[in-house]
Amino acid sequence: MSQSLLFERHRETLEKGINASRTREYWTAYPESPSPRVYGEDASKNGEAAFKSYLNKDFELDQPGMVGTVGAEKSPYGFDLGISYPKVDVTDLVGEVEAIRQDWATASIETRTGICLEILDRINKRSFEMGFAVMHTTGQAFMMAFQAGGPHAQDRGLEAVVYAYEDMVRTPAVARWEKPQGKRDPLVMEKYFTVVPRGIGLVIGCSTFPTWNSYPGLFASLVTGNAVIVKPHPGAILPLAISVEICRDVLQQEGFNPNIVTLAADGADAPLAKDLALAPEVRLIDFTGSTGFGNWLEDNARQAQVYTEKAGVNCVIIDSTDNFRGMVGNLSFTLSLYAGQMCTAPQNIFIPEGGIDTEDGHKSFDEVVAALATGVEKLNGDDGRACAILGAIQSEATLARIEKYGKGDNVVLASRAVPMEGFDNATIRTPLILKATDESSYSAEVFGPISYMVPSKNTDDSLSIVENSVKNNGAISFGIYSTSDEVLDRAEGVACRAGVAVSFNLTGGVYVNQTAAFSDFHATGSNPAANAALSDTAYVSNRYRVVQSRKHI
Amino acid sequence: MSQSLLFERHRETLEKGINASRTREYWTAYPESPSPRVYGEDASKNGEAAFKSYLNKDFELDQPGMVGTVGAEKSPYGFDLGISYPKVDVTDLVGEVEAIRQDWATASIETRTGICLEILDRINKRSFEMGFAVMHTTGQAFMMAFQAGGPHAQDRGLEAVVYAYEDMVRTPAVARWEKPQGKRDPLVMEKYFTVVPRGIGLVIGCSTFPTWNSYPGLFASLVTGNAVIVKPHPGAILPLAISVEICRDVLQQEGFNPNIVTLAADGADAPLAKDLALAPEVRLIDFTGSTGFGNWLEDNARQAQVYTEKAGVNCVIIDSTDNFRGMVGNLSFTLSLYAGQMCTAPQNIFIPEGGIDTEDGHKSFDEVVAALATGVEKLNGDDGRACAILGAIQSEATLARIEKYGKGDNVVLASRAVPMEGFDNATIRTPLILKATDESSYSAEVFGPISYMVPSKNTDDSLSIVENSVKNNGAISFGIYSTSDEVLDRAEGVACRAGVAVSFNLTGGVYVNQTAAFSDFHATGSNPAANAALSDTAYVSNRYRVVQSRKHI
Repeated sequence: MSQSLLFERHRETLEKGINASRTREYWTAYPESPSPRVYGEDASKNGEAAFKSYLNKDFELDQPGMVGTVGAEKSPYGFDLGISYPKVDVTDLVGEVEAIRQDWATASIETRTGICLEILDRINKRSFEMGFAVMHTTGQAFMMAFQAGGPHAQDRGLEAVVYAYEDMVRTPAVARWEKPQGKRDPLVMEKYFTVVPRGIGLVIGCSTFPTWNSYPGLFASLVTGNAVIVKPHPGAILPLAISVEICRDVLQQEGFNPNIVTLAADGADAPLAKDLALAPEVRLIDFTGSTGFGNWLEDNARQAQVYTEKAGVNCVIIDSTDNFRGMVGNLSFTLSLYAGQMCTAPQNIFIPEGGIDTEDGHKSFDEVVAALATGVEKLNGDDGRACAILGAIQSEATLARIEKYGKGDNVVLASRAVPMEGFDNATIRTPLILKATDESSYSAEVFGPISYMVPSKNTDDSLSIVENSVKNNGAISFGIYSTSDEVLDRAEGVACRAGVAVSFNLTGGVYVNQTAAFSDFHATGSNPAANAALSDTAYVSNRYRVVQSRKHI
Repeated sequence: MSQSLLFERHRETLEKGINASRTREYWTAYPESPSPRVYGEDASKNGEAAFKSYLNKDFELDQPGMVGTVGAEKSPYGFDLGISYPKVDVTDLVGEVEAIRQDWATASIETRTGICLEILDRINKRSFEMGFAVMHTTGQAFMMAFQAGGPHAQDRGLEAVVYAYEDMVRTPAVARWEKPQGKRDPLVMEKYFTVVPRGIGLVIGCSTFPTWNSYPGLFASLVTGNAVIVKPHPGAILPLAISVEICRDVLQQEGFNPNIVTLAADGADAPLAKDLALAPEVRLIDFTGSTGFGNWLEDNARQAQVYTEKAGVNCVIIDSTDNFRGMVGNLSFTLSLYAGQMCTAPQNIFIPEGGIDTEDGHKSFDEVVAALATGVEKLNGDDGRACAILGAIQSEATLARIEKYGKGDNVVLASRAVPMEGFDNATIRTPLILKATDESSYSAEVFGPISYMVPSKNTDDSLSIVENSVKNNGAISFGIYSTSDEVLDRAEGVACRAGVAVSFNLTGGVYVNQTAAFSDFHATGSNPAANAALSDTAYVSNRYRVVQSRKHI
């Protein structure tokens, strides 16, 4: 298909995306409902079958630099995926990608944009297959895996395309410059402006949101003309392998070398990320994962622009509420959703030691904590519902943390293992709630379904601790409950100074750990949890440069 | 004056600037003509008087952290300025600025933009004063000092404001988000988006273009809500001291603490730049100067976003021409203008050893070199005209280089000292032209009026050497002369791959070392000469972050 036809086919989506990113009103390109009416009668069945067809086989990708296979993914629902992926030699792969990338680099903005939008559209059509792939690598319950791993991730990818496209076309391709010279003839020049990509972009995926956290970087780098090497987390390769395969199919069909997008799968025993990150040809890196490795990348991959999302310690402050029941319900779900394995899940909940005012009168610290514990317990009381909310624990390390922290004498609510029908070995755990003893106990990230109820002197104290915590330990989300506008204003001041988004009085169907593409920014880029936001101009504008030529006419 | 009135007063300038930056057609906000009809009958006389009023006095600035005075500027036209500036204690200054910067950080985008535009307008009205200040610190001839140090620098400052303003308002201050929930009521939220600056911006000026190279960073940081500390080069303090004073006057008049913009003058014997750059509160650094210190900043000031313009080796390739006379005239002026002390001045001119085709038939390598040498010699043959083009040599180091390189046996055209009426001790020197012997002789920057005529095997060879040179040594400009569209296409390919702007066949009144704000980007940010371009979205978008709050309504 002619590449401008692809651009025309998806132009309306692009334009609506641009508009949404500017109004920040509700909009989504890819329906989040897994309804047969949206995705087709057989979509679920076919998607599951497609997922199963990958199991215990080689995942074929005709890439350069292959040296055997790699892959040892285990479903958190209790079985080995048994999929082998091509293992690559980093030097050969990078060398080959560098050698073939110029056709993509010099393609027109419209061509590249049309192809990226076509890729996203094709990924969208395979959202059920992706949902199962995400479920059985991350442990997310199916509904979340479908939504966050499918349409929501696609929206975040589109959002990056939208920002990059708009920034690229801000500069015209050609301009006529005519400078008056008084009585003499004017100076007249024709000037050409070319978007020139940085080189190769490396996208390093994480184990919990392999697509959602990778698509922004993948599409931001790709649409601006860079070749992209995708290095998935060893525990969550399949969703990105499928994504890469779709990229390659579309590229090849449109006459480009498919190696513009490649997969560099690795195993935990022989990680490739450092070698890839230090390759001189790699000029962009998008990383989601640990603070340790994120800092290593920032400190060592100095030839590249490095975008990192690292660990954080998210906080909620309870000052007062006129909807105690709504607050407890909202926070109970927030703490339970995907068993706290979201980078936006709150860890520390600050409550004044003297208690809080509610619509039912004063509640003591212990009463608030007890209500939250009961809320979480009840929400996960039914095994079936618990499985659908909690999903499974992705990693052994998180299981071990639940075990370790569950042994203390500060346990408010113990974690329980939830049995799941059909998946005997699924690692499903309800949230563990602890009472904080001193600041050292809760100030570092304790990843997983583990939260601290922190008694503060008062809300001033809560705000002060949170401001320092965000500045020092990072955070991606921050929630506060208060009936006082003055307290909320001060919380907004804390949020601005510390650089974290804040949600006020969430008591209904929006949760502090959820963000909506085109409306909510994910992270701010100004606290230690992340050096960039998804997505804004800063996230895209340094992925390419403009090279100009000029001549007299 | 009400701050929104300032915004309204200058709104048309802002909007025209936005439009010009998008069309990249000719536009300027500040007239470059020093005509009395534009700037007033007495502007020149008053400007010179204002400049002279600073000499041999204390430059008063009521800043925090003052510990005595500093200043030892010498006019390259042969006299000491004798001006003393406040000397600051870095810790005290940074601490005080950090303590008072929140009012500016939380001012509205319109307030800050209006104030920045008012500052630029007031600086513009003092362009003659600025012209003399720039002339007698940088050595630029008055016309250039007036234009490049005045209106052109102001245009570059405005350009940064334009990009930053447009990027900041891309995100609305408030949005209503309404997500349908099928048959249930929609989820409705109100979301607020706040531009939050990084902190303190440090602007480190250079000795040759103190205003032109500093205004983009100064205004980009300031308009996005950062406080700014300006650290001038010890040799060119006055132009930035005047600029800082105007900033402070406008800030104070509009009810802000003037210490939002401060001057940190230093002497060569006790430099402050490293201490300032490593202060944790300094989160943005704009630097123009040596590669050594630029790299040091990038490697060490890791708490800050660092924008650097460093050394480069600019090249011109001569392949062929149908206007030999025009080419020689253009290049002769280019090599002479401000005696090669522009970061865009070409150093290496590549000519095929077999000579070139021209409208007058074939010319040998030696004939081309001889024509250029004669062109430069004749252009500067008249002392008065020579002084008006060359200006004076800014630094002792450049004078020493002319001396040293003039002693070789590869001198094609010797440099001569030009006497200047009224300035007996002015250090005015004509260009020194050398014939390159081997690559090692010309591959590093030799700053000043020193150029190499480089024999290449052929134009392919020239292009290949230039591509490598730009990639390895950096460049801000690149020119080529050819009558072959195919050669120009290949040159454009070299320019794109190496990341440098290219000018084709300049034979008239536009020179490879000149760029026009709103139309030409200065540097690309993708070769070692600079990690940013003046100005584009990438240059402004990381100077602030957006912090969001949301609540149900």
